[in-house]
Amino acid sequence: MNVHGKHYRTIWLKEDDDTVVQIIDQRPLPHKFVIEDLHTVDDVARAIKDMHIRGAGLVGATAGYGMYIAALHAPKDSAEAFTAQLVADGEKLKATRPTAVNLEWAVHRQLDAIAAVGDNIDTKIAAAKNIAQTIADEDADFCRRIGEHGVSIIEEISKRKNGEPVNILTHCNAGWMAFVDYGTATAPIYAAHDRGIPVHVWVDETRPRNQGARITAWELNEHGVPHTVIADNVGGHLMQHGMVDMVIVGTDRTLYTGDVANKIGTYLKALAAHDNGVPFYVALPSSTFDWTKRDGVKEIPIEERGADEVKYINGLYNGEVVSVLLTPADSPATNYAFDVTPARLVTGLITERGICDASEEGVLGLYPEKRK
Amino acid sequence: MNVHGKHYRTIWLKEDDDTVVQIIDQRPLPHKFVIEDLHTVDDVARAIKDMHIRGAGLVGATAGYGMYIAALHAPKDSAEAFTAQLVADGEKLKATRPTAVNLEWAVHRQLDAIAAVGDNIDTKIAAAKNIAQTIADEDADFCRRIGEHGVSIIEEISKRKNGEPVNILTHCNAGWMAFVDYGTATAPIYAAHDRGIPVHVWVDETRPRNQGARITAWELNEHGVPHTVIADNVGGHLMQHGMVDMVIVGTDRTLYTGDVANKIGTYLKALAAHDNGVPFYVALPSSTFDWTKRDGVKEIPIEERGADEVKYINGLYNGEVVSVLLTPADSPATNYAFDVTPARLVTGLITERGICDASEEGVLGLYPEKRK
Repeated sequence: MNVHGKHYRTIWLKEDDDTVVQIIDQRPLPHKFVIEDLHTVDDVARAIKDMHIRGAGLVGATAGYGMYIAALHAPKDSAEAFTAQLVADGEKLKATRPTAVNLEWAVHRQLDAIAAVGDNIDTKIAAAKNIAQTIADEDADFCRRIGEHGVSIIEEISKRKNGEPVNILTHCNAGWMAFVDYGTATAPIYAAHDRGIPVHVWVDETRPRNQGARITAWELNEHGVPHTVIADNVGGHLMQHGMVDMVIVGTDRTLYTGDVANKIGTYLKALAAHDNGVPFYVALPSSTFDWTKRDGVKEIPIEERGADEVKYINGLYNGEVVSVLLTPADSPATNYAFDVTPARLVTGLITERGICDASEEGVLGLYPEKRK
Repeated sequence: MNVHGKHYRTIWLKEDDDTVVQIIDQRPLPHKFVIEDLHTVDDVARAIKDMHIRGAGLVGATAGYGMYIAALHAPKDSAEAFTAQLVADGEKLKATRPTAVNLEWAVHRQLDAIAAVGDNIDTKIAAAKNIAQTIADEDADFCRRIGEHGVSIIEEISKRKNGEPVNILTHCNAGWMAFVDYGTATAPIYAAHDRGIPVHVWVDETRPRNQGARITAWELNEHGVPHTVIADNVGGHLMQHGMVDMVIVGTDRTLYTGDVANKIGTYLKALAAHDNGVPFYVALPSSTFDWTKRDGVKEIPIEERGADEVKYINGLYNGEVVSVLLTPADSPATNYAFDVTPARLVTGLITERGICDASEEGVLGLYPEKRK
């Protein structure tokens, strides 16, 4: 999508040096726009772990590029040593964010591809570069297709509203900044906006890291989509008063049974949507499905992050992004990053193949090759 | 309750000069503990209007003391001139927070008492002092009694937990800082803690004004009650995983039918409690009941506050409390201050008279004089 009128992806190979990966550092957004160079696997691991980038698709794409960088720097004297280093680097990348299924998926896709091309190291490096680019291209293409499918739901609601904007609530950032382009939750919104369907987005602030207030608001603002930032506490009240026509969120991991892991607080919005008859959709590419687990609340590991992300917050003060203390200095804080929304609260899943029920039957209907 | 190991109320007469009212200035909390002297009616009006103090009970008590200060400074040459000045000062105090019902109640209670004691000015001043103290004492006593009733619920849960702490989630600040002492939601918690029942409080941050992270965390910390600050998004996840034994919140207005208006986001926690079988209690003195309306969602007006409370936040930076920008500068924000939790989601109401169902039958059972 566009930033200051110029098209960007969220990750790419440097134009004049394809051994360097470039990303938009999301930490100083929306106040400053910073492009960061990643030279080593440690740079990539740090960028994922410390959330210079975040979001299911982008974490996967970054891990894909990370494995290409790993291949560039792995020992070249034997295929065994080369592969052993790549396996170790893959483990390092996988360890950065425990809940993100795309990370594991991208690392293994790379390892499989690199193994499949024979023992020539240069061929392996070329394969890693090719797969990294392919993962990024597929991510963008899948998101574009999610937009094509999801826009039909918005269009349908719009027909009933006689030209009034369709009010869509979203939580966290499942926008293009969480993927390579378009986003998942935002893809139908951008598609609707670009087709002239009037939309208005309620942007959940998304404490503690404020991905909504900082990133979703920023990208909607850049693209000219009408939106309003709200505290995470507000959505239930809006739904009680008919001010939300639908909810669309992304997901970090969705089970084939329909249980959805997403940013902490998603479950609360799903409960409110269910209580008020508001449709609650989850948009995801197939790479975000977990085909092994059945019970999300019991089986999905939930990352616990540092207390300081709750106790301090970044904001703009006198032209600089500074961190301010919000709580008593010695009060403890706990910081679970995700929660699980049970399938019973989800109206439907919007995937690159189409829309389905959040149920084993629904998901396997779209992905019959996953039937056991 | 205790601050730095010493017992305080939120408002009192200065020890060596009973013509001066002292309050804890809540604006710099939790970062700085400041006691403020109020000498004149204008000082008192400013303290209420600019929210040096806030909270239903404390606003009423402060108005009560304000009328005593008014009496001290009113013309002493005739009862008529004295009373006229008090009526004018009462109007000034009532105008500070026009929706705060306790304000009007305290002013009129003072005017009635001052009129009732005859024409001697010194007797009138003594009456004003007496009523100011009585309002404060009654507020503290009602809260203490809420604690006595509510602690039985905590005690019951504690028996099942074999010495493990009872985990209580609260939203916003219905602590002693919103009243004269004890608080409402916190009163059962302080009572349990003081009796040696192990408790641990999950403190909802309570965006956008962070009354939880700033004030509830501070008062629990000062009194030595184990607690953990969480983002407002986290409560649902904790309840899904058995980490919350009960929820207790305060209320700004509760209908006699059981519908509860409280700080925005309360409804979301009530939904999660209901979905996970966690008891959800609302603590209130009888002055907070609305005996006229029946349907909270439809009939209770919800205050909409300024967007900058969402877009900016105060925090400690380099030893000073500063305001930082969180969102894109030109993104709009909306700021509803309260929401309504329907009675069907409320396990019970804890009042100074006891605990009852959140229903017309339950409430009128405790307050039979309100039957029509």
